[in-house]
Parts: sequence; structure tokens; C-alpha cells
Amino acid sequence: MTGITTTGTACELGEHGYITDKARYLARLRRIEGQARGIQRMVDEEQYCIEILTQIAALTGALQNVAVGLLEDHLRHCVTDAALSGGDVAEDKIREASQAIGRLIR
Amino acid sequence: MTGITTTGTACELGEHGYITDKARYLARLRRIEGQARGIQRMVDEEQYCIEILTQIAALTGALQNVAVGLLEDHLRHCVTDAALSGGDVAEDKIREASQAIGRLIR
Amino acid sequence: MTGITTTGTACELGEHGYITDKARYLARLRRIEGQARGIQRMVDEEQYCIEILTQIAALTGALQNVAVGLLEDHLRHCVTDAALSGGDVAEDKIREASQAIGRLIR
Amino acid sequence: MTGITTTGTACELGEHGYITDKARYLARLRRIEGQARGIQRMVDEEQYCIEILTQIAALTGALQNVAVGLLEDHLRHCVTDAALSGGDVAEDKIREASQAIGRLIR
Repeated sequence: MTGITTTGTACELGEHGYITDKARYLARLRRIEGQARGIQRMVDEEQYCIEILTQIAALTGALQNVAVGLLEDHLRHCVTDAALSGGDVAEDKIREASQAIGRLIR
Repeated sequence: MTGITTTGTACELGEHGYITDKARYLARLRRIEGQARGIQRMVDEEQYCIEILTQIAALTGALQNVAVGLLEDHLRHCVTDAALSGGDVAEDKIREASQAIGRLIR
Repeated sequence: MTGITTTGTACELGEHGYITDKARYLARLRRIEGQARGIQRMVDEEQYCIEILTQIAALTGALQNVAVGLLEDHLRHCVTDAALSGGDVAEDKIREASQAIGRLIR
Repeated sequence: MTGITTTGTACELGEHGYITDKARYLARLRRIEGQARGIQRMVDEEQYCIEILTQIAALTGALQNVAVGLLEDHLRHCVTDAALSGGDVAEDKIREASQAIGRLIR
């Protein structure tokens, strides 16, 4: 946060890309938590399976949208900072981001 | 197949396939709600983006597992009942299940 | 292929659901093969990565559509036949279909 | 960072990240084309639906692996070059990459 830091350490210091939109992300995640609670209620009330599946698909979609947003912010801040540092720092961040993308795609 | 059946109505009467496992589904969904809350906390505490993405991938995976379970129960009960009724009821249930599968796959 | 078989053996006898639409499936799969060849050409001509990724997403989508179609035909014929047979045959087909769905969703 | 760079144009000039691995990507894509042809043959020979679905899932997985590889190369070269250029060029590349990621995730 202060000082003589070099090499893309913004990420390690908590200045993640998503912080500027933190309130908006929290609102979206609260909505997602509400969707998860809604699905529980549907099962508890023994609602029709297909409607529960529709809500699960909607919740999965909402999560994927948040993930893509976080990834974009991550590229914009942490990965970009690392690219400016160059060398191993850059390479590590790119590999790490790619693995995260892989976990979301597969 | 015989008798007084009013065509696959088990589903319409709330005797969905997942009901036998209702307690187990509710426990899994409570855990999923907890995961959603955990992700909110990670954002609020400004944790590292990649770790948040890992948790989102885990939550998505847990949701997909619940969806596959519900689908299997749905095939075992509602779609099977409809198949025994035959005709349009069977066809409608199969089309409906396929559309639900499509929403989860794409 | 002939004879005294009973119980949902249509599937084992090659009368799969998709057979009625065989020509249409083959046409779609030929198009998919063409898309795969197109992506090779794009890499060979060193076209822009993002455009290649767009084509991969399109190809994946086309494959998922074929998969959902095959699944629907499978439910309509093999699983329905098994449901009419009842017992273990039905249960096995439902479990098998659910596992296939799981492989496509995850 | 220095010099006569005309802003991240490596990408526009065909020096895409994947070029160093071009032969390997082409080999993987040829294998993918072969898988697509194999699925056609399975349909033509009227093989069992579930086995066809298994092959479709395998082909989709192979395509996703290629996509993640290309994305990683794209981040390593085009997006990194753009980050070094800074400004709108960087922002455009990041947005474009994120949209491509979104198309692959959803």
C-alpha cells in the first residue's frame, strides 16, 4: 500500500481490481445468496423438479457472470501490473490466471 | 399402464423424485448457501481474486452436482410415470426434461 | 437383431432414437467436422487468437446442441422402453443416462 | 516499454502467442477433426447413443483444452504487449479477452 514496492505487488497488497466495484459485487453476491436460499425453499415446499432446475441454471449463470467480471478486473489490474514488472512475476500471473480460466470453463 | 391413472400425475401432486432424499438435498443446498456467503466475505475482506474464482468454480460444481441428482430423480419418477402413461404426456415430459438439460449444458 | 427379445431391447438392437433423424445428424456432424477443419486452417494461416476462440466456442455450442438432441432421442426411445420394462433394466438406463448428462454438464 | 513500438501490434502482425507452438496446436486440432469424424461414423453405424455422447463429451473437453491454451498464449503475448503500450490499446485487449472468456465459460 505504501513504500518501495515494485513488481506488480498491488495484488498482494489488497488493491485488487474488483475493489472499485466492491459494493456492486457484494450486491450481486447477496442476490446470489438469496437465489440459493430460494432454491432451498423450493425443495422444502416440494415444488416441481424442472422449475428447481431452471433456478439452478439461473444461479449458475449469475455466478459465471460474476466470475467473468472478476477475471476481467484481475486482468486489468493484477495481470497488467505483473506484465509491467515483466519476468517471472508476469509469467506466474499469466499461468495462474489461465488455470483459473480453465477451472471455470471445464 | 392400467387402471384409473390420471396420467403421470405423481409429479403434479408433489411426489417428486427428490422427496425421498429431501433432507439430503436440503443439507447440500444449505452448504451451497454457506459457500455463497463465504464468497461475499472474501470480496468484503478484499481477498485475492484468484482464490475467489476458485471458490466460484467450486460452488458452480456443487450446483451442477445437485442439478444432475435432481435430473436423475426426475427421470426415475416423473418421466418414468409419464412413459407408463404414454402418448402426449410422455412426449411433453421428455421434451421438458431435454430443455432443462439443455439449459444446464449450455 | 430379430427374434424373441422382450424388454426395452430396442436400444440393444440398434433401433436407437436418433435413427429416424440419422441423415440430419450426419449432416450436422459433417458441418462440425468442417468447423474443426476451419479452425485448423485459421491456426495454420496464423489468424487472430480471439477469432479462433470465437470459432471454438461456436463449435462447442454446435456439439452441445447435437448432444442435447441425442439425449432427447435417447430418453424418448431407449429410456422409455426401459421404463416400460421396469425393474433393473429401467433403473440401469436411468443411471446410465444421468451419468452421460453429468459428463456433458460438468 | 521503450522504443519504436507501435502499440501492441505484434498481434496485428500475425506474431500471435500460439505461433511458437503452432505445430503442436495443429496436431491437436487434427486429432479433434478425427474425433469429429469418428462420431459421424458412430452415428452412421448406429452405435449406442450413450457411447456417442461420451465421445461428444471427450471432444468438447479436447476443444476446451485447446481454448485454454490459446487464451494463455494470448495473455502472454498480445495482452501483455498491449499492457506495455498502455491506454486504450491495453483496455481494448482486456475487454476483448474477457468477452472471449465469457463466450467459453457460458
